[in-house]
This record gives sequence, structure tokens and C-alpha cells, in this order.
Amino acid sequence: MPEGGMRIGVVGATGAVGRVTLRLLRERGHGDVRAFASARSAGQTLDGDLAVEEATPEALAAGDLDLAFFSVGTSASRELVPHAVRGGAVAVDKSSAYRLEPGIPLVVPEVNGVRARGHDGILANPNCCTIPLTCVLKPLHDAAGLRRVRVATYQSVSGAGAQRIERLRGEQPDEHDLAMDWSWDGDETDEESKIRAETRKILELPELPISATTVRVPVVVGHAEALWIELDEPLSPAQATQLLHDAPSVQVVDVPTPAAAAQTQDVLVGRIRADRATDNGLALFLACDNLVKGAALNAIQIAELVLGPAARPEALLAAQRDGRR
Amino acid sequence: MPEGGMRIGVVGATGAVGRVTLRLLRERGHGDVRAFASARSAGQTLDGDLAVEEATPEALAAGDLDLAFFSVGTSASRELVPHAVRGGAVAVDKSSAYRLEPGIPLVVPEVNGVRARGHDGILANPNCCTIPLTCVLKPLHDAAGLRRVRVATYQSVSGAGAQRIERLRGEQPDEHDLAMDWSWDGDETDEESKIRAETRKILELPELPISATTVRVPVVVGHAEALWIELDEPLSPAQATQLLHDAPSVQVVDVPTPAAAAQTQDVLVGRIRADRATDNGLALFLACDNLVKGAALNAIQIAELVLGPAARPEALLAAQRDGRR
Repeated sequence: MPEGGMRIGVVGATGAVGRVTLRLLRERGHGDVRAFASARSAGQTLDGDLAVEEATPEALAAGDLDLAFFSVGTSASRELVPHAVRGGAVAVDKSSAYRLEPGIPLVVPEVNGVRARGHDGILANPNCCTIPLTCVLKPLHDAAGLRRVRVATYQSVSGAGAQRIERLRGEQPDEHDLAMDWSWDGDETDEESKIRAETRKILELPELPISATTVRVPVVVGHAEALWIELDEPLSPAQATQLLHDAPSVQVVDVPTPAAAAQTQDVLVGRIRADRATDNGLALFLACDNLVKGAALNAIQIAELVLGPAARPEALLAAQRDGRR
Repeated sequence: MPEGGMRIGVVGATGAVGRVTLRLLRERGHGDVRAFASARSAGQTLDGDLAVEEATPEALAAGDLDLAFFSVGTSASRELVPHAVRGGAVAVDKSSAYRLEPGIPLVVPEVNGVRARGHDGILANPNCCTIPLTCVLKPLHDAAGLRRVRVATYQSVSGAGAQRIERLRGEQPDEHDLAMDWSWDGDETDEESKIRAETRKILELPELPISATTVRVPVVVGHAEALWIELDEPLSPAQATQLLHDAPSVQVVDVPTPAAAAQTQDVLVGRIRADRATDNGLALFLACDNLVKGAALNAIQIAELVLGPAARPEALLAAQRDGRR
């Protein structure tokens, strides 16, 4: 590894998540960052002076990257990630290409960070709804055992790409509607089946009964989720609130909203109350910035976990010593 | 009763629901309609030639109304409805003032229309989420027995008044957020406790376990609901689909949306599938125009049920004979 820290590539740098990745890396003090994108976007300049390079197999395999973040979609990830790994980089992939592959860690650092150690060059970043969901489920499961989970989502258009953001900001009246604009996987959206399969893998509960209904709402940034959780053991709303208050990257608030979530790097959770439809049940509501903790930040945290202090520059360590986050 | 049909008053005629009530009465051929509103709105003209009168106790009690629709909010209903009844009118109230009072029918005609007969001058129209919910629950309960219900709502801003519609149409960026802008009733919104209490009363299941999470979304018109229903007896998604297909005022579609619901007077239901979190469970999604079947239309249907053919003018009967709706 050269002096000066990690050599980092951000592949898909011109997309919504890629841009947030670049911003967060800069805020965390990472200096040696290169931006990659498709041939169409190559040659652009980001952040004033960062030239976008074409994400060719040769460029990624050239051996001059220690770490590569991919936010390019599933088929492009399948094609490009192996080249970066062949070139010696650790790849953190934000698509669904590798998430469910046996042997590839699917990681939310606060939830199953220990699994990151077992990687073989590729680590997968979960779906933007799965990340906040598991942050909230984990402490409740550890305390009382998850029996069943039901979740209705309220997902912002930024999860559907930059074009959708522009259309909503352009205020086309027909954008003020709900949608289920995902592919179908039998009688579910593939988003619904992803949430179930990924939550089971991350929590290591392969049989966890979980049902999701995913809905796109005309909000620009921030995903929310209404949850019903049944538990094996009694857990009062007050106990659940205390557990969530103590959980890493979780903030307990009265009413979580996407706008409030977009101003923090944490998962907001609130409306913690008894599920009046059953014993040993809780109802909750959460909100999370789908581009930050729901995507770019979680991926950076995975890399920092795997690569250790080398991936955590002095600026960040100093800030942590001072008690800042 | 004078020749020419019912003498109808619409109280709160200048509000969002009042205007839809006037439109639907006109479309259904009711001619003898007067508009009432607060002193501030009195003197306005609606629909070109309908002068708005002030809704004073004296005007409502004067004895020249056979039927009065109230959409004026809870405290105004408590004050004004008794005067109209004293004057001899049947009052259909759309506020929550009388919904849970013993002896006052709370009616969704397709669900518990028979209860309308037992009125003593006042009939209550349910909450805009309760109406479509009970239209969908009733046929499933009759077939297999409801054990538990969970519902997450996606409620449009038109349910929060005309000002909110203008603010969203004016495209204030801060309007593109989720909210829970109801009063609190303990650890629930009063909307959540209304949905539970009203559903129990309408279905005559006073102990039905039901949990709701209510959420305002930046959609102008149309409410949607994600449901999980546990049943006493097995009921396949195909059987449930057939039952809902046959249910009055319900249309089965692939993906119900508020925009599609706003083009029909029916409740749209879809995404009918097994609840993967339990046996004998179904997951569904519904959408309904909250100003039409969710409010004004249901109230008119209640009146037509109570007052019989006199409240159903020839134009409507002729349309029905022709097979039109």
C-alpha cells in the first residue's frame, strides 16, 4: 500500500449514490479517490477537479486500487467487480448481484460486522430498506427473539434514480401518486423478496417469517417503514425504546420523517408502541436517508471495518477522539 | 314532502367534501339542493347559481329540509346537527361527532346497510380510511372469519383540508415529506384509534384485534392502505380474489393507486397474496378516493338507503335501468 492511505475507486460516481459516496469520503478525510463511470459520463469533472474515468475492465484490473465501491446496477456489477478484485482491490458492491451468494458477506456493520472478516475480495451492501430494518430488528431480536415481521415501506423516488428526482422536482402532476415500480418476482415485487431474503441472511435467521409491501411515494429523499414485530418473549414499549436508544446508529424520536432522516446519518425510529392486534407484539415506524446510511455510508463503514485503521484516515480518528461523529 | 323530490341541505358546502357532495348530488339528478356554510363563506355562489346561505341553528331548524349532509368538523356538527333534526330533517354527519355513540348507526351501505333503518334522525358516515377497509374486510370475514388486522395507511393531503392541497399544488419543497398530522390519543394518532373503533362497530366485532399506523403522504387525492389479515379458516389468495371480485363497490386490479382510484367510485384492491409471515394470512393493498367513496358518496348512499326511492330521483333510476352506474 502506498504512503498516504488507501487508493479508492468509486465506480458509478456520477449516479445519486456515487455522488454521495464521493462527498462522504471527502468528509471523512479520504484523499486518494478516483471516479469511474460509463463511457458516456467519462470526461466529466466532479467536485471541481475530479476527472471521471471510464470504468473499463482494464482500468479496474490495473492493480492501482486498494478499495473499490460499486454503485452501477446488478448486471454492470457482475461484469466489473471481478476485474477490480483480480487487480487486488477489495470491492464493496451496492447492487443486488452478490448479496445472496453463499460465502459473500452481506454486511450492516452495527448488526453483523463480524461477518465482514470472512470476505474473499467482495463484500455486498444490502438493500436500502434492509439496512435500517436490520439496525432496528437486531437489538429487539437479541433481547426477546423475533417471531414474525411485517413491514410496509414508504420509499422515496431517489431510490429509483436521478431521472425520477428531476421529474418530481419538475412537478409533473402525475408524479404525485403512489407506485410499485419494481420488477415482479411471482406475486411479490423483487424489492419485497429482497427485503425478506437479505434480512434473513444478515440476522442469520434463515426461516424468519417476514412479509413486506413496498410502495414508492412522491418524496425526494428518505425511506420510511411501518413495522409490526411479534416476539418470542414479552418486551414492553419502554424496554424496546431503551434498547433502541442504546443501539448503534439508531436515534429514537417521536415521529420519524424522511426530511428529518436526511439531516442525520442515523436510522430514526419512533411510534414504539404495543401492537394491539397481538400479545408480545410491537408496532414501530422508522425513517432513514436511503442514499446515506441506506447506501453510501453503510458501504464506507463496511470498507473501514474490513481494512481497519488504514481505511480510517487521521482526520476521522481525531474527530472521534474529540467525541464528534 | 313537496312535489319534485327531496329538499336537501349541504352544510359545509364550500369545503373539499362539501363541493364533491354537491357535484355528486347533481350527477345523480337531485335538483332541490341548498348550500350552507359558515358566516364567512355565506353569500358566495357555487356552481354558477347556488347561493351559499349561513348555517345558523334557525335556518337548519326551519322545517324546510328533508335531508341534511354535514361536513363541517366535529364541534360544528355537535352544535348544528340537532337543529336540523329538530326541524324534521334526516342528518347524515361526516364528522366523528356521532360515530361511536350507541344507538346512532355508523353505516357503509355495502357492509352494514341494514343498520341504517334503526336511526333516530342522525346517521354517521365513517372515517375515510374505515370505509374502504370495511368494504374489503366484510366479504373475507363472512367467508373465513377475521382473527387479526394490521393496516398501514398512505393518506393524501386532501384529507387534511383545502389549504394543504393548495400548499402541495404550490409545490413548497417542505410539503414533499411524510407526516402524522393528527391529534394524539395516548400512544396512537386519533386516526389510528378511529379506524379500530369504527371498524369494530361496523363489522359488529367489538373485540377484533386491529392495529393501524396512519401516515400522510404528498399525494393530492386518494388514500391507500397496506393490509395484513389473519383469518380463522384457510382462504387462498385465489378464493379471496373471487370474493372481492364479487363484492359490491370493490374492483380487483393488479396495483391499486390513488390516481386510478380517483377515476372511479369504487374501492380498488389488489396485491392479494399469502402473508408469508403466518398461516391463514393474506396481504393486500387498496386505494380509494377519500373525497368520493371515502366521504361524500358514502353519505349520499346512506341517505338513499334510508329515504328510499324518494331520495333516488328518476334520472338515477333510469340510469340504473340502462345498466349504467
